[in-house]
Amino acid sequence: MRPLYYEDGVLKLIDQTKLPANTVWHELKSYEQVAKAIKDMIVRGAPAIGVSAAYGIVIGVNGIVTDDKDVFFKELNNIADVMKNTRPTAVNLFWAVDRIVEKAYQNKDKSIDEIKKEVLREAQIMDQEDVENNRKIGEFGNSLIKPKDTILTHCNAGSLATCGYGTALSVIRAAHEAGKEINVFANETRPYLQGARLTAYELMQDGIPVTLICDNMAGYFMHKGEINCCIVGADRIASNGDTANKIGTYTIAVLAMENNIPFYVAAPVSTIDFGIATGDEIIIEERNHKEVTHIREIQLAPEGVNVKNPAFDVTPNHYITAIITEMGILYPPFSESIKSLKESL
Amino acid sequence: MRPLYYEDGVLKLIDQTKLPANTVWHELKSYEQVAKAIKDMIVRGAPAIGVSAAYGIVIGVNGIVTDDKDVFFKELNNIADVMKNTRPTAVNLFWAVDRIVEKAYQNKDKSIDEIKKEVLREAQIMDQEDVENNRKIGEFGNSLIKPKDTILTHCNAGSLATCGYGTALSVIRAAHEAGKEINVFANETRPYLQGARLTAYELMQDGIPVTLICDNMAGYFMHKGEINCCIVGADRIASNGDTANKIGTYTIAVLAMENNIPFYVAAPVSTIDFGIATGDEIIIEERNHKEVTHIREIQLAPEGVNVKNPAFDVTPNHYITAIITEMGILYPPFSESIKSLKESL
Repeated sequence: MRPLYYEDGVLKLIDQTKLPANTVWHELKSYEQVAKAIKDMIVRGAPAIGVSAAYGIVIGVNGIVTDDKDVFFKELNNIADVMKNTRPTAVNLFWAVDRIVEKAYQNKDKSIDEIKKEVLREAQIMDQEDVENNRKIGEFGNSLIKPKDTILTHCNAGSLATCGYGTALSVIRAAHEAGKEINVFANETRPYLQGARLTAYELMQDGIPVTLICDNMAGYFMHKGEINCCIVGADRIASNGDTANKIGTYTIAVLAMENNIPFYVAAPVSTIDFGIATGDEIIIEERNHKEVTHIREIQLAPEGVNVKNPAFDVTPNHYITAIITEMGILYPPFSESIKSLKESL
Repeated sequence: MRPLYYEDGVLKLIDQTKLPANTVWHELKSYEQVAKAIKDMIVRGAPAIGVSAAYGIVIGVNGIVTDDKDVFFKELNNIADVMKNTRPTAVNLFWAVDRIVEKAYQNKDKSIDEIKKEVLREAQIMDQEDVENNRKIGEFGNSLIKPKDTILTHCNAGSLATCGYGTALSVIRAAHEAGKEINVFANETRPYLQGARLTAYELMQDGIPVTLICDNMAGYFMHKGEINCCIVGADRIASNGDTANKIGTYTIAVLAMENNIPFYVAAPVSTIDFGIATGDEIIIEERNHKEVTHIREIQLAPEGVNVKNPAFDVTPNHYITAIITEMGILYPPFSESIKSLKESL
């Protein structure tokens, strides 16, 4: 299961706002359509957003009709800006866009047609690397899971959030494939219900035992001793390990520490923003209030009520037991382990 | 605003499953109908459940046609059992039923007609006392609120949960009436959305500024320093202060302590179960899984998914800053303050 395919100038995205009730694929043929799909959460999940944006640029540059390289690069930068202006929190988006643009500049002495081919090639490499990295995250993370563990996860850091296999769910898949007889508790993850709609769906498809709970029940089960560890994905990790992830992650981390339960973050190195010192620098996206007040067309709350809808929160590094990447497992102090990782790149 | 009225053998209940979109009143004419309404959460909130059950018994005993007191009391006990078998967690239900039954036995030497009148009279006293007690809770609680405080509440411990004025919301109303310019954050309270549907509605009707958030956002706002205190109601308080309340309350209490925010419980003395030593003895109701998987007829999760749906959790006493009752404010150590309260009754 993967949420995106690119072929012959078309990006196909499964509509994640409609799963699991309806399986609808969108065929996007312009970079503006790709940008809108990212904004509207047709595709979501930091790594999947990154690769979708990369393919969006591929589609965009294919549409540039010019022999003038200055015009070409001006257009490329414009397309890159449109992609970057879709969602502010996940750093993979910016990382992916910058990597593609840089690739184009590295090949600036070639013909425009050849630059377009290099851009496509780079997007395809990122796509392929994402799956490979996720498998490695699973392998490393599996070492942290004990047989018969019950693992709590939040939101969807699964196949549908990536180019396949997932990040947090990669660890869960690897443990399951290793025969560890694990169980998963999936937080439904309000307001967008990625846990109920996507994580429960993915795990059921893979035959991994999953129990769906409301977000506010996680503490109850932790306190009862029914959760052995928590694994979540990430949208941006600061140089000190502070981690932005789906709203509600901070709460799980606090509950985990209070109940002496390990709290793991699973994410590719591309989710680490080496450019920021702490999580205080991460912009938190505020989304449409209708996500909170409505389920499809059903109104849940009184007309005109004030609403806040931050889509992410930041978990301070001291709540995090370890960060699982494709390069290995990072332990506290994260300022040091992330610095070492950066130096090894 | 109150959720229940009794008149001439009929209990009128506003349908709290349909608010705020639809205002539907049910007219209940048998005790079986009252029991079903409690089970189905047409009426909810510990104090409102207690008084509804009392009126249910009034309706039940009115229907007993006999001159034989043994038959009368056997029937009364049967009706009381039906009422008690509706919902297991809120102690006010058992307290109210026992108080009514005891009143009947105290008057066992009178005629059956006179006993029926005493039963009605006692239910009406309980109804009236509930409102009076709530006003006193508000007055005591108001002393804990500072001007311009932003107060987080969970579920609905408001007018709709009582015979009027509320418990947690009584404190909020008293602070508002005192001109303290408070703001309220209301957790939506999954799965039943009492916060979104009832608390936001009540507070907007009263002109008290309220902001609706998803349950998993409370931690984010506490960590940002935007919440000054938390106030919740209670369904059962053990002799040591451990408090059962709507699922998610434990999580708020943990987050509050972690962020040095006072966490207050507001409840009438009838919510204290002097018969149990700790919260471990409180039965947690597990409700229908469809509450989690569906919003009305919209299916949110994959067909056949495993679900857990505990309706309550227990907050251990050490997370609670104070318990606000109509007899005054109880402080830790609660084993002692609750013992003193009991001795003063």
